[in-house]
Amino acid sequence: MTRPETSPSVRLQLGVCDYPEHVPEDRWSAYAQQQRQLGLTYVRIAEFAWGRMEPRSGEYDWAWLDRAVEAYHAAGMRVVLCTPTATPPAWLVRFHPEILPYDAQGRVREFGSRRHYDFASPVYREHSRRITRVMAERYGQHPAVAGWQTDNEFGCHATSRSFGGASAAVFPGWLQQKYGTLEALNEAWGNVFWSMEYTGWDEIRPPHLTVTEPNPSHVLDYARFSSEMIRQFQAEQVAILRELSPGRFITHNFMIFESGFDHYEVARGLDFVTWDNYPTGMLEYFAPPGIREDVKTRYARTGHPDLIAFNHDLYRNLLEGRGALGREGADSPNGFWVMEQQCGQVNWAPYNPLPADGAVQLWTAQAWAHGADVVSYFRWRAATMAQEVMHSGLLRHDETPDRGFAEVQALDLGSFPVGNVPARVALVHDYESLWAYDAQPHNAAATYWQQTVTYYSALRSLGVDVDVISASADLTGYVLVVAPAITLVTAEMASRWTAAAQGGAFLVCGPRTAFRTPGGATWTDGQFGPLSTLVGARLLQYDSLRPGVTQDISGGHTAHTWAESYRLQGAQATHTYQGGPLTGQAAVIRHGNVTVIGASSESLIQDVLRGALQEAQVVTADLPEGVRLSRRAGHTLVQNWTAEPVPWQGRVLPPTSFEVMHDQ
Amino acid sequence: MTRPETSPSVRLQLGVCDYPEHVPEDRWSAYAQQQRQLGLTYVRIAEFAWGRMEPRSGEYDWAWLDRAVEAYHAAGMRVVLCTPTATPPAWLVRFHPEILPYDAQGRVREFGSRRHYDFASPVYREHSRRITRVMAERYGQHPAVAGWQTDNEFGCHATSRSFGGASAAVFPGWLQQKYGTLEALNEAWGNVFWSMEYTGWDEIRPPHLTVTEPNPSHVLDYARFSSEMIRQFQAEQVAILRELSPGRFITHNFMIFESGFDHYEVARGLDFVTWDNYPTGMLEYFAPPGIREDVKTRYARTGHPDLIAFNHDLYRNLLEGRGALGREGADSPNGFWVMEQQCGQVNWAPYNPLPADGAVQLWTAQAWAHGADVVSYFRWRAATMAQEVMHSGLLRHDETPDRGFAEVQALDLGSFPVGNVPARVALVHDYESLWAYDAQPHNAAATYWQQTVTYYSALRSLGVDVDVISASADLTGYVLVVAPAITLVTAEMASRWTAAAQGGAFLVCGPRTAFRTPGGATWTDGQFGPLSTLVGARLLQYDSLRPGVTQDISGGHTAHTWAESYRLQGAQATHTYQGGPLTGQAAVIRHGNVTVIGASSESLIQDVLRGALQEAQVVTADLPEGVRLSRRAGHTLVQNWTAEPVPWQGRVLPPTSFEVMHDQ
Amino acid sequence: MTRPETSPSVRLQLGVCDYPEHVPEDRWSAYAQQQRQLGLTYVRIAEFAWGRMEPRSGEYDWAWLDRAVEAYHAAGMRVVLCTPTATPPAWLVRFHPEILPYDAQGRVREFGSRRHYDFASPVYREHSRRITRVMAERYGQHPAVAGWQTDNEFGCHATSRSFGGASAAVFPGWLQQKYGTLEALNEAWGNVFWSMEYTGWDEIRPPHLTVTEPNPSHVLDYARFSSEMIRQFQAEQVAILRELSPGRFITHNFMIFESGFDHYEVARGLDFVTWDNYPTGMLEYFAPPGIREDVKTRYARTGHPDLIAFNHDLYRNLLEGRGALGREGADSPNGFWVMEQQCGQVNWAPYNPLPADGAVQLWTAQAWAHGADVVSYFRWRAATMAQEVMHSGLLRHDETPDRGFAEVQALDLGSFPVGNVPARVALVHDYESLWAYDAQPHNAAATYWQQTVTYYSALRSLGVDVDVISASADLTGYVLVVAPAITLVTAEMASRWTAAAQGGAFLVCGPRTAFRTPGGATWTDGQFGPLSTLVGARLLQYDSLRPGVTQDISGGHTAHTWAESYRLQGAQATHTYQGGPLTGQAAVIRHGNVTVIGASSESLIQDVLRGALQEAQVVTADLPEGVRLSRRAGHTLVQNWTAEPVPWQGRVLPPTSFEVMHDQ
Ligand SMILES: [Zn+2]
Ligand SMILES: [Zn+2]
Ligand SMILES: [Zn+2]
Repeated sequence: MTRPETSPSVRLQLGVCDYPEHVPEDRWSAYAQQQRQLGLTYVRIAEFAWGRMEPRSGEYDWAWLDRAVEAYHAAGMRVVLCTPTATPPAWLVRFHPEILPYDAQGRVREFGSRRHYDFASPVYREHSRRITRVMAERYGQHPAVAGWQTDNEFGCHATSRSFGGASAAVFPGWLQQKYGTLEALNEAWGNVFWSMEYTGWDEIRPPHLTVTEPNPSHVLDYARFSSEMIRQFQAEQVAILRELSPGRFITHNFMIFESGFDHYEVARGLDFVTWDNYPTGMLEYFAPPGIREDVKTRYARTGHPDLIAFNHDLYRNLLEGRGALGREGADSPNGFWVMEQQCGQVNWAPYNPLPADGAVQLWTAQAWAHGADVVSYFRWRAATMAQEVMHSGLLRHDETPDRGFAEVQALDLGSFPVGNVPARVALVHDYESLWAYDAQPHNAAATYWQQTVTYYSALRSLGVDVDVISASADLTGYVLVVAPAITLVTAEMASRWTAAAQGGAFLVCGPRTAFRTPGGATWTDGQFGPLSTLVGARLLQYDSLRPGVTQDISGGHTAHTWAESYRLQGAQATHTYQGGPLTGQAAVIRHGNVTVIGASSESLIQDVLRGALQEAQVVTADLPEGVRLSRRAGHTLVQNWTAEPVPWQGRVLPPTSFEVMHDQ
Repeated sequence: MTRPETSPSVRLQLGVCDYPEHVPEDRWSAYAQQQRQLGLTYVRIAEFAWGRMEPRSGEYDWAWLDRAVEAYHAAGMRVVLCTPTATPPAWLVRFHPEILPYDAQGRVREFGSRRHYDFASPVYREHSRRITRVMAERYGQHPAVAGWQTDNEFGCHATSRSFGGASAAVFPGWLQQKYGTLEALNEAWGNVFWSMEYTGWDEIRPPHLTVTEPNPSHVLDYARFSSEMIRQFQAEQVAILRELSPGRFITHNFMIFESGFDHYEVARGLDFVTWDNYPTGMLEYFAPPGIREDVKTRYARTGHPDLIAFNHDLYRNLLEGRGALGREGADSPNGFWVMEQQCGQVNWAPYNPLPADGAVQLWTAQAWAHGADVVSYFRWRAATMAQEVMHSGLLRHDETPDRGFAEVQALDLGSFPVGNVPARVALVHDYESLWAYDAQPHNAAATYWQQTVTYYSALRSLGVDVDVISASADLTGYVLVVAPAITLVTAEMASRWTAAAQGGAFLVCGPRTAFRTPGGATWTDGQFGPLSTLVGARLLQYDSLRPGVTQDISGGHTAHTWAESYRLQGAQATHTYQGGPLTGQAAVIRHGNVTVIGASSESLIQDVLRGALQEAQVVTADLPEGVRLSRRAGHTLVQNWTAEPVPWQGRVLPPTSFEVMHDQ
Repeated sequence: MTRPETSPSVRLQLGVCDYPEHVPEDRWSAYAQQQRQLGLTYVRIAEFAWGRMEPRSGEYDWAWLDRAVEAYHAAGMRVVLCTPTATPPAWLVRFHPEILPYDAQGRVREFGSRRHYDFASPVYREHSRRITRVMAERYGQHPAVAGWQTDNEFGCHATSRSFGGASAAVFPGWLQQKYGTLEALNEAWGNVFWSMEYTGWDEIRPPHLTVTEPNPSHVLDYARFSSEMIRQFQAEQVAILRELSPGRFITHNFMIFESGFDHYEVARGLDFVTWDNYPTGMLEYFAPPGIREDVKTRYARTGHPDLIAFNHDLYRNLLEGRGALGREGADSPNGFWVMEQQCGQVNWAPYNPLPADGAVQLWTAQAWAHGADVVSYFRWRAATMAQEVMHSGLLRHDETPDRGFAEVQALDLGSFPVGNVPARVALVHDYESLWAYDAQPHNAAATYWQQTVTYYSALRSLGVDVDVISASADLTGYVLVVAPAITLVTAEMASRWTAAAQGGAFLVCGPRTAFRTPGGATWTDGQFGPLSTLVGARLLQYDSLRPGVTQDISGGHTAHTWAESYRLQGAQATHTYQGGPLTGQAAVIRHGNVTVIGASSESLIQDVLRGALQEAQVVTADLPEGVRLSRRAGHTLVQNWTAEPVPWQGRVLPPTSFEVMHDQ
C-alpha cells in the first residue's frame, strides 16, 4: 500500500473537462489561457466527439481537433484525450444495429443519448479498436498529450449488462470455456433444482424475464461474464494505446458505487485510476438505501463525507500497486485522480441543489487528503445545448465565472502535498459478494453497499483512516481487517485471512460472512465454510427483521434488518440476543483475534470496532456528527461537513470548512 | 358438510417434502429413517424432477428414483409422487418454444426458474400426458406409493393466465364454443360500447395492452377461459393416474389466496385437496391490502390467525363432499392436507423473519383444528443450491436439526383426533365475483379479498367456526350464511339463497351484492337484480371514499372505502347514514332473515354479525385480540397468537401457544 | 377578448350526452321527451358508434341512427353529431394493424377499448375522411343537426404521441420539411453533444428507450410533430364537414390539463371549443403534483375551484376570437361549452366519491360564470355494460332519476345570462414551454402545471378574473400580464411583451422565464435571452430544493422547490434571499412595470401579485379558503366550495353553494 515518497515540491494538481466542439472556435485560445491562469494543469477533451472525428464511416476530420489541441498546448495545458467509444455515432448504429444493448426487460436500448452499445459485440469491438487506433496514431506522441482516458464511466445508466443481442450470443461460449462440460455447469449452478439442467450450450440465456427469480448462480455467472466483456473491451483499447502512445498514461474514469462489474479486474493494466465525484448527486441518487431522508436533507449541499470518502478509499487502492507507470516520470505523483469533480449543481438527480459556500474547496481538500494527486473539475463552461444544459461548469452559460470558479481560484495548492495515506485499517470489498448478496437479499432493506458503508462509516466516525481493498489483496501491514459483507469466500481467501490473524492482525466480520461458495451455493457444512476453524463457530439462525421489528442485544444495543446467531465451536460470545426467537444465543463472537458481528446495529458495530482498534493500538476519536479527520503525507485534514459551526478540541470549526494541520 | 366419523384411533398424521436428487445418494436411507423416527408418515418427492427422469427427449432414467422410493419404502414412509410438469426441462422448451407463456406486458416468460408453460398449449399438453403416463406406469402400483400430487401450485408467480402464444390462439375457439355466434358474444359483452363489436373470431385477443382498461366482460371471460385451461390440463393427468395407479389418491397443492382460476372447478375429480401454508410469508406478501403495517409487524413471527384459518376453511370445503375417495379405505381420514407447512423462515417475502418459538406447533394444531388430516412440512433439509438456499427446512444446510425439528418432535399427535369441524356458519366465496370485483374496484383500497376477509375475521373474532363455501354450494344445515362480496349473482343462486332464508337460515350480505349479471354487466333493473325480492330493496347510491374521507353511520360506526345506500321496497333500515351526501339513507337493511350491510366498517360488520349469530342461536365470544377458538371432533383449540401472555376465562394463555380442550 | 353583446334573453343552455345504441329502441322517444322536459336543449350522440354505422367494411347501416335522430327531432332536441373516429372497429384494426399506436415502452397498443390509432397513419387518415364524409353526406343538412364534434378527447389515455409505427415513419420527413438539411437539424438540436449528429434522415427515431434521457430538443420536436399530426387529422375532418354540413358548428371536446399537443394550433378552424369537466376525477387524477393529499381530501366531493376554473379560462380563450362562426346566427351565444359535465360519480379515478349535495348546480353555475354558453351533462342514463358501468348518469341503471337529475331540474337558467367575462388580467400559457419544462424539470417536485396553477390560484384567491391566453396572443387591453412558466421565449414574444409594458401593462414573470431558446437550448448569453433588456437583469444562480430544504426570503417568505437569483442590470431587487448559498442575492426584481419572482413561495407570489394588481388599479379581495368570485355579463357569482358554512361580507355562505349577484 506504500508508494515511494515524492519530493516535497509535488503538490495536488488541478484540471478541467472541456468540450471545444461545443463552443465557437474563437473561444478556444481564450478558454485555454483562462484555464491556465486559474492554476489548472490538465484538460480532458474529446470524450464524446466520435461524430466530429469521423462524421461518416471512414471519413475522418482531424483538423478541428488538431487546432483544439494546439490551443491548449500553446497555453501550457496538458491534454488528456479520451477514446470516444461511449458514443458510437448514428451512422454506425444504423448500419450495425446489432451493436445495441438490451435492457433487463428485453427491449433494445436505442440511439439518442450515450452508452448505447453492447461490450460483447464483436462488431463494436472492431470499431472500438479502429477508432482508438486512428486517434492514437494521430495524437499518441503529441507533446501536449499527457495521457488517455478510455471510454467514459463504464456501467453508467445500468449499461454493464446487456440482456440480449451480442451478450446473449456470446454468453454460452464463455460458459463453455469456463466449465468445459454441461455436467460441470449444471453441477456448479445446482441446476438439478427445478429441473434447470441444460443439455445444450445454446439453451442458455441471460437470467432475465424468468417466471420467478432466476438461479443466483446463473445471475452470478452472468455478472462475471459481463464484467469480463468490459475488461476485454478496455484491454483492447489499452493495448493499442500502449503501442502507439508510449510514455503516456492510460486511465479510466470510474463511477460512484457502480456495481455492474469487477473494478479490480477491469482496472488491471491501467496506470492509475480516476473516478467522477459528484457529492450532491451521489447523496440524492446513488446513496445506499440505508441513508435516511433526514440525512439527505442535512447534507443536501455538501454530500455525505463518508460516501465520498469511501469512493476515494476504494479507488485509491483499486490497482493495489500493480503496474503503476507514473504520469511524468520518477518524481511525479502516481495516485488516483478525480477526473470529474462537481463544481456547482448537477442536473441528473431528483433534486439538484447548489453546493454550500466552501463545498468545492472542501471536496477538493478531501480528495487530496484521501490520496488524489489530481482533481479535475467538470466542466469548463456549462453546456448550452442538449441533455446537460442544467449542469453547471466553472463558467456559466453566459461565460461569467460561476461560484465554483472563485473557490478554485482561492485554493492554496501549497497546503496539499502528495504522499501516503497512512491507513492501518483495511476494509475488504468484493464485487462477487456484492452480486451474490444483492441477488438474494432476504430482506428488502438489506444491501451489500448499505452493510459495507455502515462499517466504513463507523470507522470514519472514530477518526480512523481506511484502505478499501479487494478480497484478494495482500493483508500485510494492516493491524485491523474489517470484512462487512464478504459472503462469498474461497479457500484461498480463508487461508490468507487465517495467516493475517495468526500474524497478529485483528479481523472483524459482518453477518453472512462465508455464507456462500464461489459458485453461489451454500456450503454443505453451513456458514462459515472454509472460515469455520478461524471463526470457531457455525451459523445457528438468521433472522430477517421487517421495519418495526427489532431484536435486543446485550449491552443495550438493538438490531434492525438482520440478526444471526452462532453455535460456538471454540469462539466465545461477547454479546447475546435478548428476547425473541434468538434469546440467549450468540450475537457477537470472538475467537482469538477474530470477531464476527451477527446483527445490524450501528451502535454495536461502532462499539466492537472501537474495541478492536484499541486492542490494535490504533488511536480513535469519537468525532462529532459531520466532523471528519483524514491524514496524508504527514498532515491531517480536519473537516466540518455540517452547515453549523462545531466546537472541536478547544476551537470552533466553521460551517463547510477544513483545516490542514501539520502532524506533530 | 358432514363426513363419516372416523375411528377414535385416527389422529392427525405428519409428512415432509423431500428432494433426494438434491443430496448425495448416501444420505437417502438415513434421511428416510430419521423422518420415520420423527413420527412422519408421508414423504412427497419428485416434484420438480422431470430433468432427472427424462434427461433428454425420450431418454428416461428411472434408476435413481427407483432407489429413492425403495429407501423410503424400507424406512416405512408412504410416498406421495408428483407429476413434474411445473418444470419442463430446457430441451423441451428450446425445441418447443411455443409452450412458453406470455406476461401481461406481452413478453415471453423465459426458462430459468419454474412454471414456464402455457396451460393451453396443445404441445405442452401432449408432453404433460406423456410424462404422467410413463411415471404412472412405473410407479402407479408400487406399494410405497400412497398417492399423487399433480404439478405444483397452479397459478403461482402469476401463471394462471398467459397473454399471448398458445392461450391467445385457443381463446377465440373457446369463445366460439361458448357463444356460438359473434352476435351472441357482442351482446353478452356489451361490445356496442366503444364500437368493440367483433366481426370475426380471430379478431379477438387477450384483454391486455389496451389503450385504457379493457371491457370487464372480456376480462371475465378470459379469466374463465384460463381457469378452464388449468382444469383441462389437470384433468388429463388425473385420467391417466386413475387408469394406471388404482387405489391411490390424487390431489393438488393449492396456493394462499390464489385468484387466477376457479378452484372449485379445477379441484373437481381430486380425492381431496391440499394447500401450502406459509404463515409469515402470507402475511408479508399475500395479505389483502386492508392489512395494515402495524398488523404485519405485530404478527410478523406467527402470521395472522384469520388469514391462515380462512385458507384452511376454504380448502376444507373445496370439494364439498363430491367424489371423495378416501386415502386408505373406509376407516381413514378424508380431510384436506397441508402439503407444505412452513417450519422455519421462508425466503420469498420482502422480509423473512424467524417464526416465534412455538409457532410451528401452533400452525400444526390450527391446521388440525380446521380439519386437516395430514400436515406435511416443507422441506426436509434446507436446499444448498439455487433459488431457495435461504429457505429453511427441518434440517439446516449442515444437516443439524433446525428449530422446527424440535417443535415437530415434541408434538403429541394423540391430542389431535380427526373428525368434523362443527361449523354452522357459511361464508360464500366465488371466483367469478372476485374477478369481476377486482376488474373494476372503483376504489383503489377495495378488493374482493379485503372485503371477504373482513367479514371472515369478524366471525372469527366472535369465536365462531366457519365453512367457506362456493356460491353454488348446498346451504342446507347452515343457520347463518354470510356473503361478503358476491357481486355476480345468477338466478339459480338467487333461488337457492331464497330457499335457505325461507328455511330459516339468516343471510348477511355485503355491499355490491348482485351488482352484476353473470356476464359482467349491471342488471338493467339495477342492483340487486334477481335478489331484489329477497332483499326487499334496490340500490340507491354508492360512494367511493378516499383515505381521509369517512361517512358516519348511526350507532356510532364510521365507514371508510365504501358506502352504499338503498331504496326500501319492503326492507327496514336498521342503520342510516349521518352527514354527507347519503344523510338519512339506509346503510344497513333488514328484510325477514336477510340483512345487507352497505358500508365498510369493521365495527358495524361485527355488530350486525353478532346480532345475527345470536338470533340464529350460535354462541359467540368476544375474543381478545389475537386469541382464537377452533373446534373439531369434540374438542376446542384455544390459541394465543400474540407474543404476550393473554388473560382469558380465568387463566393466562402463554405467548404463541395453544391448548386442546375436550368439549363438555 | 371581447365578444359582441348578446340579447338579454339569451341564457345558459343545457345539454346531455346520449347513446341510443346502448338501450333498447323502445326507450328512444321517451328519453328524448324526458330530456326536453328537463330543460335540455342539446343532445350529443353517435360518439363511439362507428361499429354500428359500418358493421363491416363498406357496409353501412344508417337506419337505426336515422330513427334515433328523428326521435330527438320530434322531441325538439338539437342534435350534436360526432365523427366516430375515436373508436375504429375491429375489422378495420385487424385488416390494417399498421394504424395501431405504440406506447413509450415500444409496445403496440391493442384494440379493445378506445383511441387505438396513430394520428400520423395515412391509412387511418383515409378511413377517417371516409367515415366523416359518409356521415356528413347523410346528416349534414338534417334540420335537427345543430353541429358536429370531431372525434373525442384528443390525447386522452396518453394517446397524443405514438412511439413507433406510422408516427416513427412520418417523423423524419416532417423534420426534413422543417429543417431542410441535416446540418440545420444537428445544429438546432445541439447534436454535437454526445455525438448525436445524424447523417441520414432515416436514422432518426422517436425519442424513447434511449439509454439515458434523450435530447430535450429531440423531445420538443417530437411533441411538435405529434401535435401537428393531430391538427392535420382534425383539419381533414373539418374540411369535409364544412363542405357537407353548411351552417352547422364544428367543435371538439378537449381534456382536463391535457399536455400532449398544442391546443391553440389544433383548435384553429373550429367554431368554438368545448371541454369535458369532471371536477372530482380532475382533483383525484389530473391534479398537478403540488396539490397535497389534504387538499384532495377536503375538496373530494366538489373538486378544487381553481383547477376547474383554470380549464374554463383556458378554453374560453383558446380560439382568441379567430373565426367564430356562431352556432345559431348573429343573436346567439358564441362562447365555449362544457361538452361533458360530471353529474354524479365518475368511474376512472383511484377514488370516485359522490358529489356533495349542490355540487352539480355549483359546477354548472361556475361554468356559466367563466363564460360557458352551454353545459352538457355526461350522460343521460348510466351505462349498463362494459367499461363505464360504474359511471353515473342523470338516470341510474334502473332508469330512476339520480341525484344530479334533481339538481339540474332545480336550476334557474334565468339567473345565467350570457355575455362577457370582464377579465383585465391575463395569464400566459404555452404548450412548448410546458414540453420543455417537463422534459428537464431539474427538481422532481417541479412541473409546468404546478407552477402555472400556483400563480393562477393566487390570482383567484384575490378575487380577480383571469384570461388564460396563449404566448402568441394579443396583450391589448390587459392591465396585468402574468407569465408563470414561459421558459421558451422567442424574439417575437419579447417584443410583444416589451410593447405591452411600454403601453402601461404590468408584467409578472415566474422563475426560468426565457431560460430556453425556441429550439430547447439555453441562450448563450444566458437567461433572460431576448427579454434581458426588458427585465433589466440576468440569471445568477438557480437552486433546486429537496423536500425539507427551504430558502428564506426577506419579508418573511420561504421558498421550497425552486430559488433563483439575478444579477441586476437596471432592475431593482425588491426581495433578497437570506441564508444559504444565495444570501443577499435578488429573489424578486423589478424593472419599470416588469417584475420577476425567482422563488417558489405561495405567500411571496400572492404578495407580489396583490401589489401589482393594486398598482394596476384592479380591485382585489382576500377571499377565505374555498370562497371564490367569478364575474360575467354584469353579474358576480359568489361561490362556497367548502363543506362548511363560511362567513363572508356580513352573511354566511352555505356549504357547496353559490349566489348570483347583480353588479351595481
Ligand atoms: Zn505541512
Ligand atoms: Zn379429547
Ligand atoms: Zn341579473
